Amino acid sequence: MDTIKVGIVGYGVIGKRVADAVAAQTDMEVAGIADIIADARMEIAKKRGFPIYCSIPDFREKMEQAGFDIQGYLEDLVQESDVIVDCTPAGIPQRNFPLYEKYHKKIIVQGGEKHHIVQASFSTFANYVDCLGLDKIRVVSCNTTGIARVLAPLMAENQVKDVFVALARRAADPVRTNRGPINGVVPVLGISHHGPDVVTVYPELAEKIYSLAVAASFTLSHVHMIKITVEKPMSRDELIELWKKYPRIIVRRGKEGLHDTAQLVEYYRDLGRPRYDRPEVFIWEETIDSDSRGNIYLIYDVHMESIPIPENIDAIRAIFGTADIHKTIEITDRALHIDDSKYDYSVPFPGEKKRQS
Amino acid sequence: MDTIKVGIVGYGVIGKRVADAVAAQTDMEVAGIADIIADARMEIAKKRGFPIYCSIPDFREKMEQAGFDIQGYLEDLVQESDVIVDCTPAGIPQRNFPLYEKYHKKIIVQGGEKHHIVQASFSTFANYVDCLGLDKIRVVSCNTTGIARVLAPLMAENQVKDVFVALARRAADPVRTNRGPINGVVPVLGISHHGPDVVTVYPELAEKIYSLAVAASFTLSHVHMIKITVEKPMSRDELIELWKKYPRIIVRRGKEGLHDTAQLVEYYRDLGRPRYDRPEVFIWEETIDSDSRGNIYLIYDVHMESIPIPENIDAIRAIFGTADIHKTIEITDRALHIDDSKYDYSVPFPGEKKRQS
Amino acid sequence: MDTIKVGIVGYGVIGKRVADAVAAQTDMEVAGIADIIADARMEIAKKRGFPIYCSIPDFREKMEQAGFDIQGYLEDLVQESDVIVDCTPAGIPQRNFPLYEKYHKKIIVQGGEKHHIVQASFSTFANYVDCLGLDKIRVVSCNTTGIARVLAPLMAENQVKDVFVALARRAADPVRTNRGPINGVVPVLGISHHGPDVVTVYPELAEKIYSLAVAASFTLSHVHMIKITVEKPMSRDELIELWKKYPRIIVRRGKEGLHDTAQLVEYYRDLGRPRYDRPEVFIWEETIDSDSRGNIYLIYDVHMESIPIPENIDAIRAIFGTADIHKTIEITDRALHIDDSKYDYSVPFPGEKKRQS
Amino acid sequence: MDTIKVGIVGYGVIGKRVADAVAAQTDMEVAGIADIIADARMEIAKKRGFPIYCSIPDFREKMEQAGFDIQGYLEDLVQESDVIVDCTPAGIPQRNFPLYEKYHKKIIVQGGEKHHIVQASFSTFANYVDCLGLDKIRVVSCNTTGIARVLAPLMAENQVKDVFVALARRAADPVRTNRGPINGVVPVLGISHHGPDVVTVYPELAEKIYSLAVAASFTLSHVHMIKITVEKPMSRDELIELWKKYPRIIVRRGKEGLHDTAQLVEYYRDLGRPRYDRPEVFIWEETIDSDSRGNIYLIYDVHMESIPIPENIDAIRAIFGTADIHKTIEITDRALHIDDSKYDYSVPFPGEKKRQS
Repeated sequence: MDTIKVGIVGYGVIGKRVADAVAAQTDMEVAGIADIIADARMEIAKKRGFPIYCSIPDFREKMEQAGFDIQGYLEDLVQESDVIVDCTPAGIPQRNFPLYEKYHKKIIVQGGEKHHIVQASFSTFANYVDCLGLDKIRVVSCNTTGIARVLAPLMAENQVKDVFVALARRAADPVRTNRGPINGVVPVLGISHHGPDVVTVYPELAEKIYSLAVAASFTLSHVHMIKITVEKPMSRDELIELWKKYPRIIVRRGKEGLHDTAQLVEYYRDLGRPRYDRPEVFIWEETIDSDSRGNIYLIYDVHMESIPIPENIDAIRAIFGTADIHKTIEITDRALHIDDSKYDYSVPFPGEKKRQS
Repeated sequence: MDTIKVGIVGYGVIGKRVADAVAAQTDMEVAGIADIIADARMEIAKKRGFPIYCSIPDFREKMEQAGFDIQGYLEDLVQESDVIVDCTPAGIPQRNFPLYEKYHKKIIVQGGEKHHIVQASFSTFANYVDCLGLDKIRVVSCNTTGIARVLAPLMAENQVKDVFVALARRAADPVRTNRGPINGVVPVLGISHHGPDVVTVYPELAEKIYSLAVAASFTLSHVHMIKITVEKPMSRDELIELWKKYPRIIVRRGKEGLHDTAQLVEYYRDLGRPRYDRPEVFIWEETIDSDSRGNIYLIYDVHMESIPIPENIDAIRAIFGTADIHKTIEITDRALHIDDSKYDYSVPFPGEKKRQS
Repeated sequence: MDTIKVGIVGYGVIGKRVADAVAAQTDMEVAGIADIIADARMEIAKKRGFPIYCSIPDFREKMEQAGFDIQGYLEDLVQESDVIVDCTPAGIPQRNFPLYEKYHKKIIVQGGEKHHIVQASFSTFANYVDCLGLDKIRVVSCNTTGIARVLAPLMAENQVKDVFVALARRAADPVRTNRGPINGVVPVLGISHHGPDVVTVYPELAEKIYSLAVAASFTLSHVHMIKITVEKPMSRDELIELWKKYPRIIVRRGKEGLHDTAQLVEYYRDLGRPRYDRPEVFIWEETIDSDSRGNIYLIYDVHMESIPIPENIDAIRAIFGTADIHKTIEITDRALHIDDSKYDYSVPFPGEKKRQS
Repeated sequence: MDTIKVGIVGYGVIGKRVADAVAAQTDMEVAGIADIIADARMEIAKKRGFPIYCSIPDFREKMEQAGFDIQGYLEDLVQESDVIVDCTPAGIPQRNFPLYEKYHKKIIVQGGEKHHIVQASFSTFANYVDCLGLDKIRVVSCNTTGIARVLAPLMAENQVKDVFVALARRAADPVRTNRGPINGVVPVLGISHHGPDVVTVYPELAEKIYSLAVAASFTLSHVHMIKITVEKPMSRDELIELWKKYPRIIVRRGKEGLHDTAQLVEYYRDLGRPRYDRPEVFIWEETIDSDSRGNIYLIYDVHMESIPIPENIDAIRAIFGTADIHKTIEITDRALHIDDSKYDYSVPFPGEKKRQS
């Protein structure tokens, strides 16, 4: 197969990052992006050189008047693509399915969509092999991706008996200035969807994971406080060493000038990361703790805007079957410059073996 | 004994509330308040008619120039008092101890002080009987008070095997406008002090409770996400019924227009509560959940400014031995108008029996 | 005339305060309040003993199931009332007008409504006399009320040549937790409506007042930075003395522990003000400045939730012609406990003479 | 002269940006950076390849243990440099002066320092020519830079009679997570320093400019609401055209998806700007307004972290006399990639002629 042609529908917080990430790979290319916006956000697509399509005919004139060269409508983009990554707001992808299916295109949707509308939910570390060759999958959301990553090293070599995760969620992405609260905390009134969502990629955690969540007045990232109980107790040092060698996981000490999420953002701004993105889960090393009963505790940061981006790239390779799990992780990460000499790309992943049947 | 004369040292967020609460009781009175401030905050003490003392001689002139009638220095207040409730910033009470001890006065300090500097840490529901007649006790902090209250009904009649509490903390009281963060989340880098602090009043929870905490950009209250594992599983309905009958605990549904902490504040503003205080723990009923393995989950609100106030009043009665646990709770709550016909003041409390030896 | 029967439609941020303020007067009473909510907010009306009406028939069952004793529908309340104060969200009052007019009732709407739908916009200090006996008036919004008050002493005895006001607006009331921004500043893209709105009550300021505004991440109050140019220059001391004697205006120094809006809130919480309301404009004395060219500068706080409440009460008296301007201000303020011995209720007001023809 | 060797003392919010900006020029180079930090912030300097010096000997061991190769102490850096740009916290540069003077080095300090400790305050557009060849100058602060830029086109060709600027200030830089307020507005109690500070670079505005300021709960940028009165009235269209052709000023419509400061940040993140910096003043076009009396109104954004960076580069050329005003602006801007084909680098600047004597 030649390079995979990826059509990206919805050029928002996730879509624009998927587009850049696809463009950074050598085995895939951006067939085009489709949206209806005609403002400064779309300038970015134009500067990147992505072919621009109009998702809804009524908006074409406005887009053209704003100076965008429209290549065609959504249906045209679908025909030009081998796979569609639909990043439109929740609920819309499902309405687009008939169009994608008309042309027998593979489909990837994001974590805001319902699990039951696809063949499988996907998270690289958790269930890559299970998704090989499928036609319609869903990359789980930012928080679920974070949990799936943190659990992966433990699930690969131990038995996770119980997980309780408490999420302090950013109430709005930075750009969503119409959303609050400005001061206050909004609890999710019941079990949050995160626990059950993890089960879609780790079915063996059914009945073993519970999640509670609150949203509050910050925009930079989600922060998880988690308690994991494993079969075989592990020492704090073993845990640190374990997580450190896994890709897409950073373990650093807050004392290194990374005390909080704002200092994290500052570091990645300084580092020159595009959009200060940190697609890695960031674990504060000082918070890792464990006891002789198999309980493990830690706090980590989940950058909601970028964390599922590497998984979207892997998802494309999974459904076309063009790489095994270790290879896709390494290729993706090197292309996104989130690899590091500390990582061991040969570590075991739960997702390297069949787990759902 | 006649009315107990209470000297309040430090007229800040806690001190001013303790003063009002003491003034509302019939068996105690405000001997005076001592501080060094000479601004609008002190006007309140004057309007309330509390005798004002100057804590540090250098500030007397400034206070008098600002129009405050100074009754004397801290040492004078100590002599006028039967007990001192020291509400000054952390670290200062210990420096005041020699002065209080010189006149053989009983002493109550707040949760910011170290446990080891007093004879016992105190939380009414947890260990009232253990503190009867002591001379120097510490009322545990807002978060610990909240946890102690929520656990009390379970500990009275069941066996709590394990507790994990994740705290989303307000980063600053509303009036502390110099403190941040403005946008961002600050994790406590390691086990937070809350778990170990609970053990000071529930010693049987040693090794059984763990806590993680983050602070963020809100000022209204702390919110706890907790998992409690008990010996005998309880249904969700049993739990709701149980907590509802305990004083100082409110169980209401978020759907009743109380979805978040800001809506809670609005409700108590409307209700006419002084300073919109809610000394009760507020549990969102929808979040109460349980399973057949004895796990219990819930989210509750802890109003840091007011929650330890009833316990301070009880603490005074405990050290003078003037009321039993059921009586002090009822008297305090009625005087503070936080009683309700829903409450059953004869419920069992862990603190009604000897628990430390 | 006996006591004026006031029907309050919409029991939200403004409506609930108007209801309490009406109930506090001796010459008027709450005929009832009408709304469609059936949650904790409505409990307050019940506790206050206000007759509750259902604004939209479909909601009656829900309200009754929630335990509220419904006296009838909106039309019934209209018949029971001498005047309707409609405090529903912008746009709705106008749709209710035919119903109010069917029964020939006087009508008061709030500042969110358009000026042209009423006979006159109203602000006590500015144009009380002009509104005597009218049937349908609009009490100007919080920010306009604030500006009208601050300008009143100058307009009564001097000539205001030019006004430029820059508003830092709270982006959402505390209870509107769905609204942002969480971090960021949102400018009004063009002249803000405040300048032109002031002209509806001070027509002589046409072409002389301009306003710019930004909204940002705070909920406590609006803050205005204003430059006023007057014909006859006044010294800083004269200005301080002038504003201090006017009712509904507080001039205090920030150095008195009132440095910022959060410290203001704390003070009024401590003081025991219902809902910590401060219907007065609060001027930071240190910011008052002037020069020999007649320029005056200052910064003041506008508590958006409560500032137009006294004006609503005055408005009722204006349209029934039951008090002159000096008398209504004094009666209203004493009933609301916002009077003070510093105030001189005989000061001249622009609104004591005919200004529109 | 060969390339100018620039020593940067203090590697914080400003220092790290000055270092990157110097490194981007062809006529200057980074001699080294000096600081005492040994954490993640210093990693950036190491990654950039800047020679690292230790400002205070006591910290050298800690820095070396953290893996940084220390080239020497502050005094060594001074000797290696032709000019020192001191970006340490306010008050420290003055204490460093004797060391810099010992080696007869030219000195540039930032806007937090006092005007009187240097020979002149500097802002390119305002007074470049006045600073040619000086030895010790101060680049004015972010807000003053913003005002100086916005006024420049008017002052070059018109006569500015009066300026009133009201600032809504970000209360803390994003990385300063210890600073508040979280919710609330903090007024500057009196004239803010910005007006007088503008006079240090535009002496003809003495007695003609006034400023008021509030700080509030946001971190992204300052926003100014300004009224400028000029001798010869200008139409809105003329103003837009005028500002658009000036470098370092962007005039765009909020309606283009740039409604607020958070959307601005998003745009510059997407654009790939290092640290999402926007050293340009950003004027919301819709807010530009004017009248026939010469009054001009507008709202603009000042990115406090990056706006004075181009001026620091120009300042270096000014004191060495290596470029004229038009040339330095163009060179600096092209190197920083903030030039644009819209700009006309031959426009007149007030600072191209002698203005102080």
